[in-house]
Amino acid sequence: MTRFASALDLAADIRSGKTTALAVITDVLATIRQHDAPINSVTHLFEEQALERARQIDAMRARGQALPPLAGVPFGVKDLFDVAGHVTTAGSVVLRDTPPATQDAAIVQRLKAAGAIVVATLNMDEFAYGFATDNAHYGITRNPHDTARMAGGSSGGSAASVAAGFLPFTLGSDTNGSIRVPAALCGVWGLKPTFGRLPRQGAYPFSASLDVVGHFAGTLDDLISTFHVMDASLPVAGPDVKTLKIARLGGWFAADIVPALEQAIAHVCNALGTADRIELPETPQARAASFLITACEGGNLHLPRLRAQAMAYDAATRDRLLAGAMLPANTYIQAQRFRSRFRRAVHAAFRQADVLIAPAVACEAPRLDSPTIEIGGKLVSARANLGCFTQPISLPGLPVLTLPLLDTHTLPLGLQLVAAPGRETALFSVARELARQGLAGRVPMQHAPPGATPDT
Amino acid sequence: MTRFASALDLAADIRSGKTTALAVITDVLATIRQHDAPINSVTHLFEEQALERARQIDAMRARGQALPPLAGVPFGVKDLFDVAGHVTTAGSVVLRDTPPATQDAAIVQRLKAAGAIVVATLNMDEFAYGFATDNAHYGITRNPHDTARMAGGSSGGSAASVAAGFLPFTLGSDTNGSIRVPAALCGVWGLKPTFGRLPRQGAYPFSASLDVVGHFAGTLDDLISTFHVMDASLPVAGPDVKTLKIARLGGWFAADIVPALEQAIAHVCNALGTADRIELPETPQARAASFLITACEGGNLHLPRLRAQAMAYDAATRDRLLAGAMLPANTYIQAQRFRSRFRRAVHAAFRQADVLIAPAVACEAPRLDSPTIEIGGKLVSARANLGCFTQPISLPGLPVLTLPLLDTHTLPLGLQLVAAPGRETALFSVARELARQGLAGRVPMQHAPPGATPDT
Repeated sequence: MTRFASALDLAADIRSGKTTALAVITDVLATIRQHDAPINSVTHLFEEQALERARQIDAMRARGQALPPLAGVPFGVKDLFDVAGHVTTAGSVVLRDTPPATQDAAIVQRLKAAGAIVVATLNMDEFAYGFATDNAHYGITRNPHDTARMAGGSSGGSAASVAAGFLPFTLGSDTNGSIRVPAALCGVWGLKPTFGRLPRQGAYPFSASLDVVGHFAGTLDDLISTFHVMDASLPVAGPDVKTLKIARLGGWFAADIVPALEQAIAHVCNALGTADRIELPETPQARAASFLITACEGGNLHLPRLRAQAMAYDAATRDRLLAGAMLPANTYIQAQRFRSRFRRAVHAAFRQADVLIAPAVACEAPRLDSPTIEIGGKLVSARANLGCFTQPISLPGLPVLTLPLLDTHTLPLGLQLVAAPGRETALFSVARELARQGLAGRVPMQHAPPGATPDT
Repeated sequence: MTRFASALDLAADIRSGKTTALAVITDVLATIRQHDAPINSVTHLFEEQALERARQIDAMRARGQALPPLAGVPFGVKDLFDVAGHVTTAGSVVLRDTPPATQDAAIVQRLKAAGAIVVATLNMDEFAYGFATDNAHYGITRNPHDTARMAGGSSGGSAASVAAGFLPFTLGSDTNGSIRVPAALCGVWGLKPTFGRLPRQGAYPFSASLDVVGHFAGTLDDLISTFHVMDASLPVAGPDVKTLKIARLGGWFAADIVPALEQAIAHVCNALGTADRIELPETPQARAASFLITACEGGNLHLPRLRAQAMAYDAATRDRLLAGAMLPANTYIQAQRFRSRFRRAVHAAFRQADVLIAPAVACEAPRLDSPTIEIGGKLVSARANLGCFTQPISLPGLPVLTLPLLDTHTLPLGLQLVAAPGRETALFSVARELARQGLAGRVPMQHAPPGATPDT
């Protein structure tokens, strides 16, 4: 396997006999063992069972059986998806002594049924609570574009392993931005589907009101084709981009953006022929409500374990979960009531535009030795603020595609394309147009190793 | 009008010309003015506008226009339903200086569109928080069967005004039992429809997760026919009672019942040919969860006003709302999570039976000078415990018909008939069968005044 090979190419090559599933999986495992140490995206390799599954697929082909669409394609999962026989840690040592999962998470089942092979679990912030993938137990996941910088989180291992070319696609989850932030910082494609669209069974929960299962991919075609496998109800054809009304989100979403990103957004709007701006009301409140709902629901979920073994938690997670468990019900209920109001305002915006454009993160990946970003002229904690553009959009459960910008002459920068619930195909149409115009695609590594062939 | 006249009879008499709407409304107003003082069910009479509306209906008839189904029929509303031009107090002085409602509550609009005439607002516990209709500002509503006893609450005025024969039907609301408790204690029919079935717009809220709008009637035919007006989607024909599986709820719902009620339930089960018992799991927890959700949501709703004018609240309400506003989010979220689990258990029960039978209240109406009931051999506060059989059933949002038992040789006692969501017609079929067998119907007053003609 070549690093940066796409899922569709791999599946085609295995189907045609140009390579075998066994060769692909053997190669992926070797690549990860050889190159992941400085990145630390992988927490566990399913070596034997992945090789065994590859042999089964090769045997199917040898017998002349039709291969399913992703036969032999390797993928990895954020370490909160159940994989049968494996203990789901959710990035914590707290769960290390729980029994192994008895079955795969629902979404893993769907991918396996399509022939994909799960080869790795991927690093994350403990219990998905963070934007840094700085895990006290399993270490920091570093950005493949510059290992002195953050990969973003909480699905940092999922983004970094795609950015590094180890895996063509990976599963993640997004509550406040945990797919969108690392996708932007690592320069890969990420999809947070509509809330409730994909099944969460077998994914370790965080916030029942906000958790969404989604994925990362190195190419847009892979992102879309694997999503079709994950959700068979998705229409094959999307709308013509010319029929879509597109607008940029102003106000909150236009402040504190680094110049290169501001310029890139201008190019994108220009390429799409839109000068429209829409301002959502009460965006800071939407961000706060998303924060508060997460803290309260996370606190509720973890309180029994915190009572028993608080000191086993990652310090960064423990304090916030305890604080969340002690917030008043009044705060939580008010946040949920606000959510209904904000949802109405957002739906009103979708009468003016089909797709909204916003930055995913305001700047390049922060340095690990100086984990700050600038907001309102002040340096603030990156961990607490990397989600300032993603959190408000979590609240109403909208589908969001994170698009890696090309030619920004910087480390990766990403945009959010946002649509009304269920309208993922509109996002795909806009993304395809931007990829076609050379404005979006996996960001090539500045110091890509020999043999690596970046593509979009 | 005769006290205890039914809505259907009144509508028929007005339509046939046997009487006029003006005569009916004039008579109702006079009856209430003359007889309500010892009961205190009415807080306001819409004299002028009711008489004006009656004249309009009589004019329509004089012009030969077709009259809508409830033309000229008087009804009253719990004092939390908006009536255009009138300040909705929700039983509090806190709202006394708010502007008058600009339009009728949605459910009032539907009844008015069918020709019904709103003549009165009816007393309630402040902000619907109570089972006693003991209101610091507007006084106690007394039980028409014995004015030394409670009418129950919080829709006490709505139940008592029907029991006293002032009004053929009235609107109420039920969060933890506020229709079912007073219906049982006053010996009238009450319906708490499926959660979400009737619109709540224009009804002053209490707990968004649990509030249900419903009604009281003196006859089962009135209860059903007015419900058809309130929800045009209801099928006209219900299921044949012979096709329904009926079971009695055991466990929690079979303890601490007074002997006369136990005997009456045995008669009812016998009449319906059922010996089946179903026990719902975790019923005390369901009651607690209903309590907690109410306290937290009520607390959230009132906290801004409590901060400004706590001492204007009824003492009995204020302390509980403040306590609710200070409960932790963890408690609230856990109660909502339990609700999902309990709902699944309840739905499993509906695979075994279509209609479940349970007591509404364990005993006769408590005396006002000794407001206690016996639970587990101990005398406990009636106010806090009258809902012990109604609260668990609030939690999953089930439709419940409260049926007044006949021939118990006691003050009124009531049953709950409970069905799966949306299956109100199954409740009507069972209720009709019990009314047909003479086991259920408005309980006649022991000391009914001359001229009163109780009916079922």
